[in-house]
Amino acid sequence: MKASEISEIFNGELTGDGNTVITGVGKIESAGKNDITFISNPLYEKYYHTTSAGAVLVSKEFKLDTTRTDLTTIRVQDPYTSFISLIEIFEKENETEETGISSNCYIGENPVIDEDVFIDEFVKVGSNCRIGNKTKIKSNCSIGNNVTIGNNCVIEPNVTIFKGCVIGNNVIIHSGTVIGSDGFGFAHQTDGSFRKIPQKGIVVIDDDVEIGSNCCIDRATLGETRICKRVKIDNQVQIAHNVFIDEDTVIVAQAGISGSTRIGKRCMIAGQAGLVGHLTICDDVIIGAASGVSKSITKPGTYTGYRSKPIKEDLKQEVLIRQLEELKDLVKKKKD
Amino acid sequence: MKASEISEIFNGELTGDGNTVITGVGKIESAGKNDITFISNPLYEKYYHTTSAGAVLVSKEFKLDTTRTDLTTIRVQDPYTSFISLIEIFEKENETEETGISSNCYIGENPVIDEDVFIDEFVKVGSNCRIGNKTKIKSNCSIGNNVTIGNNCVIEPNVTIFKGCVIGNNVIIHSGTVIGSDGFGFAHQTDGSFRKIPQKGIVVIDDDVEIGSNCCIDRATLGETRICKRVKIDNQVQIAHNVFIDEDTVIVAQAGISGSTRIGKRCMIAGQAGLVGHLTICDDVIIGAASGVSKSITKPGTYTGYRSKPIKEDLKQEVLIRQLEELKDLVKKKKD
Amino acid sequence: MKASEISEIFNGELTGDGNTVITGVGKIESAGKNDITFISNPLYEKYYHTTSAGAVLVSKEFKLDTTRTDLTTIRVQDPYTSFISLIEIFEKENETEETGISSNCYIGENPVIDEDVFIDEFVKVGSNCRIGNKTKIKSNCSIGNNVTIGNNCVIEPNVTIFKGCVIGNNVIIHSGTVIGSDGFGFAHQTDGSFRKIPQKGIVVIDDDVEIGSNCCIDRATLGETRICKRVKIDNQVQIAHNVFIDEDTVIVAQAGISGSTRIGKRCMIAGQAGLVGHLTICDDVIIGAASGVSKSITKPGTYTGYRSKPIKEDLKQEVLIRQLEELKDLVKKKKD
Repeated sequence: MKASEISEIFNGELTGDGNTVITGVGKIESAGKNDITFISNPLYEKYYHTTSAGAVLVSKEFKLDTTRTDLTTIRVQDPYTSFISLIEIFEKENETEETGISSNCYIGENPVIDEDVFIDEFVKVGSNCRIGNKTKIKSNCSIGNNVTIGNNCVIEPNVTIFKGCVIGNNVIIHSGTVIGSDGFGFAHQTDGSFRKIPQKGIVVIDDDVEIGSNCCIDRATLGETRICKRVKIDNQVQIAHNVFIDEDTVIVAQAGISGSTRIGKRCMIAGQAGLVGHLTICDDVIIGAASGVSKSITKPGTYTGYRSKPIKEDLKQEVLIRQLEELKDLVKKKKD
Repeated sequence: MKASEISEIFNGELTGDGNTVITGVGKIESAGKNDITFISNPLYEKYYHTTSAGAVLVSKEFKLDTTRTDLTTIRVQDPYTSFISLIEIFEKENETEETGISSNCYIGENPVIDEDVFIDEFVKVGSNCRIGNKTKIKSNCSIGNNVTIGNNCVIEPNVTIFKGCVIGNNVIIHSGTVIGSDGFGFAHQTDGSFRKIPQKGIVVIDDDVEIGSNCCIDRATLGETRICKRVKIDNQVQIAHNVFIDEDTVIVAQAGISGSTRIGKRCMIAGQAGLVGHLTICDDVIIGAASGVSKSITKPGTYTGYRSKPIKEDLKQEVLIRQLEELKDLVKKKKD
Repeated sequence: MKASEISEIFNGELTGDGNTVITGVGKIESAGKNDITFISNPLYEKYYHTTSAGAVLVSKEFKLDTTRTDLTTIRVQDPYTSFISLIEIFEKENETEETGISSNCYIGENPVIDEDVFIDEFVKVGSNCRIGNKTKIKSNCSIGNNVTIGNNCVIEPNVTIFKGCVIGNNVIIHSGTVIGSDGFGFAHQTDGSFRKIPQKGIVVIDDDVEIGSNCCIDRATLGETRICKRVKIDNQVQIAHNVFIDEDTVIVAQAGISGSTRIGKRCMIAGQAGLVGHLTICDDVIIGAASGVSKSITKPGTYTGYRSKPIKEDLKQEVLIRQLEELKDLVKKKKD
């Protein structure tokens, strides 16, 4: 693509050689002659003088360096968002689409498989499954009986989806993730042993959800574990049975949500955070990294600390702890 | 099944229509006309007036609502336990058993495979393996050489069991779990580099153990890593080499046990807890969620906190920290 | 092998019967008549009097028990290192090497596969992959397009390596690990929703790296996520996009490193530790178990605590917290 064509896509303002040929994208530090890059964060402006890129997207306010006559500059409304779009455009140009159903996969009885589906090597699909238009199931996945997967989904290699689970449209599930394995439920018997409580519910994952690698989302005991629209989940996250995660919530790597807890809309659960079971977290809550939540939260805001508290309280407490030596010295000076 | 037949199974006392046809189980909030549900926790008694279930199991003491003539009520000794049994009964009625050995699996030399074994698509079983009666190995599992698996086990999809490991009877291993991979052992060399210590031991898992999804249980350096009878392990738990977990202990999601640590009988290690290596934890110990244990424990009881302590001490310390501001104010008022 | 032959390998000094036949290695507590064992840690010297082993490696300074005429003793420079070498020697004697390419695997177009490569059942290898001399890819692995794997690597079962990633020589990747899945990157849109940022970079893993089971190492957004030479990573570790881990660093189980963080040479990140994104950790830093790091570290040393600090400060603070009750009592006694 020519730099001038890129400028046109984003309604940009081009300075330099519009005929520069761009074939890919790159980081400003390492991009080459046929790459386009971008400057959004002022910390990266210094690279403007040294980058080897062929072209760079900058903001309308960016001050050009007139000595860089070799570098084509395109002013756009939002350089970062434009750059993301360019990544997607070049990705489509460079990739050959995988389609079709491998002769080395196994598909059970009564499948309902839409158009342009891709099922890769060594995938097992159980009986009575429905797989939507343009969905891709990568190698070595195991899909149980009666599973429904919507349109435009990507199920990466080595994923397991157990019987009866329902996956919406445009869902991405990364490698090694397990959807719908048994919840951890045992009834303590009078002789001290544990009896397994059968886990008969399902997992429902709504449209536009993305789930990272090696996550676990357990099926409900009865009813459903639910991941609502546009939720984004990072790697190695544990979601126990009967949890409900409302729309647009983000859960970062290695966090764990215990059974039957409900999380509101637009929450952000940071990495390694842990929530005990049967809580209700309201909308617009941020839980800090490695924070432990043992009580329901009814007020939006940020909660942090080993025993989570509103961030203001937590930081105040931290300051008081750091002043302990000072306080001790002060006490010593006081009259007996 | 008729409601009257269910009542007979549990020696119950039926009120209402014994001919109500029950075909499944449901949560009291969402059960339908042909579902049976239960009330055990008083918090759910309110739903008795509104449930759409066809029948409900209640305790002998439960006070009936005479206006609910449409709802068949069965008084039983223990509604929860009876309900679990019903789940199992309906599960058996509704499921078709999988049996047989797929033509798309691979089985090495000298297999000893009992009756009614199920080996699913794309399973690799190494040489000299023994697989017991009625055991099921689901799709895409990898079983190494010389592995022994007992009777009535379920090995869910994408599980790896490495060479020489021994699995007892009635063991359930959920998806993505790795049994018997190398322990993390390196000898620091004089040049500062690390030399891998060969991990030559095995993992032994005794009868009636259940292990969650995406867990790791490493093989011993020499000897064995051992999970004793009836231990229950949740998802994403890490168990290092040469660990010993004694009978009836429960380990909740994302907990980690470091190398050579021994955990006693009937312990409960809560979610995200971490134990350092070479510890001994006595019987009947509870470790709180996200608690860190760095010393052996010789007295039964509950231990909590970032640096775990007996719960009483930990809570006392937490109260003192919360009173720090108050204490600071008090100090200021004291005479210089 | 005879005990005398073992003694010769390590230039040892043999006491007892040099003709004792040794066929394997064992722990001193449980070794049998044809096993050799070792004593390095003085805690294990007591077993010298009771072990059933056929031979034992001890240090030059070890005091022999003249009553144990049945036990052949070999004095060597470093009993532990010699023992590790013996484990490797017996391992080679007892194992049959797996080689060849299974007829049940799938290999894409234009493969470049060196000599003595082993590709096991149900492995998918994408197009344009290079696999080096003597490398083994175990069952049910999924290798994407354009992946390069060096010589002498072992890729254990159920591993996923995504397109374009580059693996060096002598690399071991344990089961269930995912290399090169998408980083967790979303651009917050003005309507409150998230737009996926395409993850176009790769993962590069240098020579002599070992990575545990069920780990996740995400591909870079642009450029590369890099694991440098001789890094050792335990199970269930999360490494986010664009992270850089320098040579000889060790990362213990369940630790998590957030995006774009750089870790220096010879660091030790203990189990369950967490590092936030965009940090720089200098060489020779130790991060304690379950410690949270939210700021860059510029001085070598040990850092511990929920909010990590230099260990001295952290322990001092812990002592002050434990003395809080005492302090409170002292304050009460002071004059108003």
